[in-house]
Amino acid sequence: MNTIKKIQSKIEEHFSKINFDKNPTELYAPIAYTLNQGGKRLRPALCLMACDMFGGDIDKAINPAIGIEIFHNFTLVHDDIMDNAPIRRGKVTVCKKWNTNIAILSGDTMMTIAYDYIMKAPVAVRSDVFAIFNKTAIEVCEGQQYDMNFETQQNVSINDYIEMIRLKTAVLLAGSLKIGAIIGGADETDAEKIYRFGVNIGLSFQLKDDLLDVFSDEEKFGKKNGGDIVTNKKTYLYLKAFELAKGRTFDSLWYYFNKYFKDDSVKINGVKEIYEELKIKELTQQAMDKYYRQALKYLEKIKVNESLKSELKKFVEKLMLRES
Amino acid sequence: MNTIKKIQSKIEEHFSKINFDKNPTELYAPIAYTLNQGGKRLRPALCLMACDMFGGDIDKAINPAIGIEIFHNFTLVHDDIMDNAPIRRGKVTVCKKWNTNIAILSGDTMMTIAYDYIMKAPVAVRSDVFAIFNKTAIEVCEGQQYDMNFETQQNVSINDYIEMIRLKTAVLLAGSLKIGAIIGGADETDAEKIYRFGVNIGLSFQLKDDLLDVFSDEEKFGKKNGGDIVTNKKTYLYLKAFELAKGRTFDSLWYYFNKYFKDDSVKINGVKEIYEELKIKELTQQAMDKYYRQALKYLEKIKVNESLKSELKKFVEKLMLRES
Repeated sequence: MNTIKKIQSKIEEHFSKINFDKNPTELYAPIAYTLNQGGKRLRPALCLMACDMFGGDIDKAINPAIGIEIFHNFTLVHDDIMDNAPIRRGKVTVCKKWNTNIAILSGDTMMTIAYDYIMKAPVAVRSDVFAIFNKTAIEVCEGQQYDMNFETQQNVSINDYIEMIRLKTAVLLAGSLKIGAIIGGADETDAEKIYRFGVNIGLSFQLKDDLLDVFSDEEKFGKKNGGDIVTNKKTYLYLKAFELAKGRTFDSLWYYFNKYFKDDSVKINGVKEIYEELKIKELTQQAMDKYYRQALKYLEKIKVNESLKSELKKFVEKLMLRES
Repeated sequence: MNTIKKIQSKIEEHFSKINFDKNPTELYAPIAYTLNQGGKRLRPALCLMACDMFGGDIDKAINPAIGIEIFHNFTLVHDDIMDNAPIRRGKVTVCKKWNTNIAILSGDTMMTIAYDYIMKAPVAVRSDVFAIFNKTAIEVCEGQQYDMNFETQQNVSINDYIEMIRLKTAVLLAGSLKIGAIIGGADETDAEKIYRFGVNIGLSFQLKDDLLDVFSDEEKFGKKNGGDIVTNKKTYLYLKAFELAKGRTFDSLWYYFNKYFKDDSVKINGVKEIYEELKIKELTQQAMDKYYRQALKYLEKIKVNESLKSELKKFVEKLMLRES
């Protein structure tokens, strides 16, 4: 059994060994820049932990795990173009540090490199690993499209939102786990269970993100609260509030999200007050907990010794308790 | 032995069967739009013809052939964003008909779908097919980056240019042939020969494109001559002319490419006159012929009956004689 720490250091060790000092430098420098920023390396960690849990050799899963992380970073590089985002992980985004064209093309190249790593999965399971990965990759694109649609779409239900974050975020966590499990020797039933565990964990994590954006200790969070409110982002909190608000509360909510405020804090405080009135924080936490408990149920059903599940459990618990 | 015609109709038949009537429509409609425009379907045709030449069953190569064509179309969708191109194959480009974000994301999705088809290659050769495809995909990205670099790069040599078009254009034709050959049962030596045949054919085709842009029967070509001249594109003709021009001729060439002309035809005619003086047309044709003859040498060396090479030979001959 490998500890979280050992798994994380293995991932970093592998990333540090990849050589992107290649020509044309205009293409490879943004890739190195993106991949060397670190980030949580959540997906490859889940992949290796799932492999380990089923008694597999994590060295056999490391390349697909790296491939998943490169794919994830590719989606961030392209998402940042689409969102016109200036900052990612506290650093200037590729599209702003270089330009849109370079961000498009270095993203495309990262995707191709990701497939190279995915296809280094052991021969016996290579086709299965590829199939899970590719299905996931298409779903992530679909999720991103729904997310873009929601920006201008008037009626977005909570269900629409959950389906969007399932595709955009949750399936890649689930796919990472399933790929690790399959390389680790899990049978189909258990692989499916860990996948569902991953989907529910992913939904729960995203609701946590939505919550942290509005209600967090700004010092620990590392940035100001309310970014999603300022940009009218249709988060779980936003949608739940519009679902519940009636009469004057609805009018106020509508007002805050449809008027231009010179001072962002007026808007943020106004919306937060309504969220508090409607108990949006508690309702979001309840939904988060529901998905989290559902995830743990799937984990429980997996036919491996409980002690082997402990590292994965610890890892997701820590992520659920994070404050940034 | 299948005729070109039969192969082409098989490709169209397969494309017509793919269902892109899926959600989110914002993502899949641009994909259907792109893939239904037709185009020459050159790459899948080469793939199937190579398979056929080695006595293989073209039905086993059809899915990877489709995958290659989808990949090629993905590169066009993203290239059109980077070039800010309004028209492709006589139709409005995805980035203009929809928008840049949709073009980025539907392109990404096309790439993922391409991999799905590539991985439908017969199990016995699947890893080889993937390896050829993925190496090619990375090279195509590198070629596109060099092409973008050349726009602002002062000193581009003829060698730099040939290397750029090898990566951006030729290797995908070569890879298509090699994938078809391998599925058809070619050994490694013959697969390498057909790859080199493809690279040389690709270089020859690109020089032909460069030539047609300046010297073609406009009616047959379907558009006005001189597009590359107007945009100062560093084509073989441009680079050869700057290599050879001296004294006053060099000064004139410099003048035409560095001054703004209200009337494009003044620039086009001025440059064409210099090209004629320097015999650029003939020199480009000589280079074209050199690569074409080199290609045929590789084809000759392949250890299959000459009669089996005839369809492929006819096909590339026709493409070399094309006037648009």
